[in-house]
Amino acid sequence: MVMATELKHVFHMNGGSDDTSYAKSSYIQKQLLTLTKPLKEQAIRDSYCKNLPKTMCIADLGCSSAESNTLSLITELLDTIEKAHREHGNEPQEYQVYLNDLPGNDFNTIFRSLGKFEDKLKKKMGDDFGHCFVSGVPGSFYGRLFPSNHLHFVHSYSIHWLSQIPKGIENNKENVYISRTSPSNVVKAYSDQFENDFTTFLRRRSEEVVAGGMMVLTMLGRKTEELYSKESCYMYDLLATALNSMVFEGLIDEEKLNTYNIPQYPPSAAELRNLVDKQGSFSFDQVHVCEVSWEANECYKYSSSKESDHYDFYKCMRSVVEPLLTSHFGETIIEEIFKRYKDLIQNAMALENNVFINVTISLTRKG
Amino acid sequence: MVMATELKHVFHMNGGSDDTSYAKSSYIQKQLLTLTKPLKEQAIRDSYCKNLPKTMCIADLGCSSAESNTLSLITELLDTIEKAHREHGNEPQEYQVYLNDLPGNDFNTIFRSLGKFEDKLKKKMGDDFGHCFVSGVPGSFYGRLFPSNHLHFVHSYSIHWLSQIPKGIENNKENVYISRTSPSNVVKAYSDQFENDFTTFLRRRSEEVVAGGMMVLTMLGRKTEELYSKESCYMYDLLATALNSMVFEGLIDEEKLNTYNIPQYPPSAAELRNLVDKQGSFSFDQVHVCEVSWEANECYKYSSSKESDHYDFYKCMRSVVEPLLTSHFGETIIEEIFKRYKDLIQNAMALENNVFINVTISLTRKG
Repeated sequence: MVMATELKHVFHMNGGSDDTSYAKSSYIQKQLLTLTKPLKEQAIRDSYCKNLPKTMCIADLGCSSAESNTLSLITELLDTIEKAHREHGNEPQEYQVYLNDLPGNDFNTIFRSLGKFEDKLKKKMGDDFGHCFVSGVPGSFYGRLFPSNHLHFVHSYSIHWLSQIPKGIENNKENVYISRTSPSNVVKAYSDQFENDFTTFLRRRSEEVVAGGMMVLTMLGRKTEELYSKESCYMYDLLATALNSMVFEGLIDEEKLNTYNIPQYPPSAAELRNLVDKQGSFSFDQVHVCEVSWEANECYKYSSSKESDHYDFYKCMRSVVEPLLTSHFGETIIEEIFKRYKDLIQNAMALENNVFINVTISLTRKG
Repeated sequence: MVMATELKHVFHMNGGSDDTSYAKSSYIQKQLLTLTKPLKEQAIRDSYCKNLPKTMCIADLGCSSAESNTLSLITELLDTIEKAHREHGNEPQEYQVYLNDLPGNDFNTIFRSLGKFEDKLKKKMGDDFGHCFVSGVPGSFYGRLFPSNHLHFVHSYSIHWLSQIPKGIENNKENVYISRTSPSNVVKAYSDQFENDFTTFLRRRSEEVVAGGMMVLTMLGRKTEELYSKESCYMYDLLATALNSMVFEGLIDEEKLNTYNIPQYPPSAAELRNLVDKQGSFSFDQVHVCEVSWEANECYKYSSSKESDHYDFYKCMRSVVEPLLTSHFGETIIEEIFKRYKDLIQNAMALENNVFINVTISLTRKG
């Protein structure tokens, strides 16, 4: 089983900007940024107007190397604040933007794209735009990352990632995740780990976020209360199928498969609300649940944007799971795993329109 | 001539941690950290005691990828503050540490070494140690990097690097730097560029450093007021000799050599004091000028530390100038340049004990 500390080292999105890197293939995440825009806009506006800080401190937790996304997000947020700012003051607004991810992520690539980002920002915002200072913060968001009472706004699209593989799931054989056939103790171990991690996350942030400060958290989730849902687990069922076929052919050791599990959990909106209330530091403001198609969705299908051409659900999944797979099964077998996984995804997409579920919540720090 | 914006892209220390990388070969810089320790300790103590901030904000500007150095420096500084802190309060002290360098530097390597650094720090500082939050800030220190009135202490060992190759030094033929034969307009162009850059540096920092906050700046410098000094220029004279021999043999185009210049300037203590007074935002507290031998110096010669075995002035110079040389002369010729440069350095070291000069100043933000 992968231990927490080891996970911190192997767990990162594919770096650089080649074909399978997260930066290019995170097209789905880009869709999500658009889908959750109204909720984010209201939250960032509210958190700004409640505090009117001289320097607005914003953090994107688990920003990964998808610089086009994290920087699009930042542009979007700053645009909203600038509008609100013009109603309140004349002095140029200062921003301190923190991009956080685990230390194994490729910060170099994102840092090298900041010059272009800043040029674009100045052009978009006009002459009376203040300063936007961007820094990289390596570390796990399950630990403390920022000084006390420092942040005005927190964004994340990563809270479905657990801090470690849940303990006590040794009998989750032939699966790599929660599946229809998972024994109940496996499902419970996953949900207990999430409860523990999410509560830790809220406690850490409660020390860092100022009173009135807000968080917008988007994660892979569930629509229903049932713990197995096809929408949340099917992409990993297919990965298990690929791996099992290789065990059957003697290419992968059975024991090796039995100890591989994906450290992710898809919570429901009700579960999140319950945990937020129980932890007590934040009030639960809004929730938004949406289905995202594995296919490029309608608004992208008919757009003239070149980006829709790059859309590829397989590439997106690959960039997310490859580091964990490689570290567990080794370099030599990885291409064969992905060959089979790719075929299974393409067959599934040819048969029906698959979706996955995202849950977005906005929270305000009480005080 | 390399323009300012281009320089920002090519100008970085060698990344990674192989044999010629800055991280391993910055042995000389390590010596300097030791030589300037008393001055730094007093300054960080004073800046802490004057402000007693809830979160002490510290920046190392131009930290490069020499993580062993920048992190040793941080440990040293925090150790001093913790001692002062115990005399003043009980609540654990929080630290926000910013590691700055140009975006082309290898931040990934330094970020991946932070886990070990934090473990060591906690062990050294004991149970009542607060939090030390480390973040990476990519960008030129000749621009704004931090919010207004934010920093309590600034350290840098990089201010001798100019923001660009001085304009108007086209007739600095056969040299790559200030030399005994440089025409007076070349020397003036270098010193004007430094005056301009250093004043800009002070102005930017005056917006970022709180009243009573302090800066300790160490740089390659001069002992005398004469603008050419062997101690400051000899290492680059030797590089010019290597390059000229290759021009003579037709391996390098003469025109290519004539357009190559090193964007560095070695100020004297008096020059620095004059510029600080003229800019007006900081008071000039202390100055410390020291000679550093190209050889491992006495305290290292007789120490049992393994580090002294790694000492190699050539490797140190190579790691500093290689990116600029490669970008100007190309990959194919680079090994031959360094073969010749290495021989010249070794011959020079066999003949006499060469030194270079470092100037350290401490400044306090008025207000």
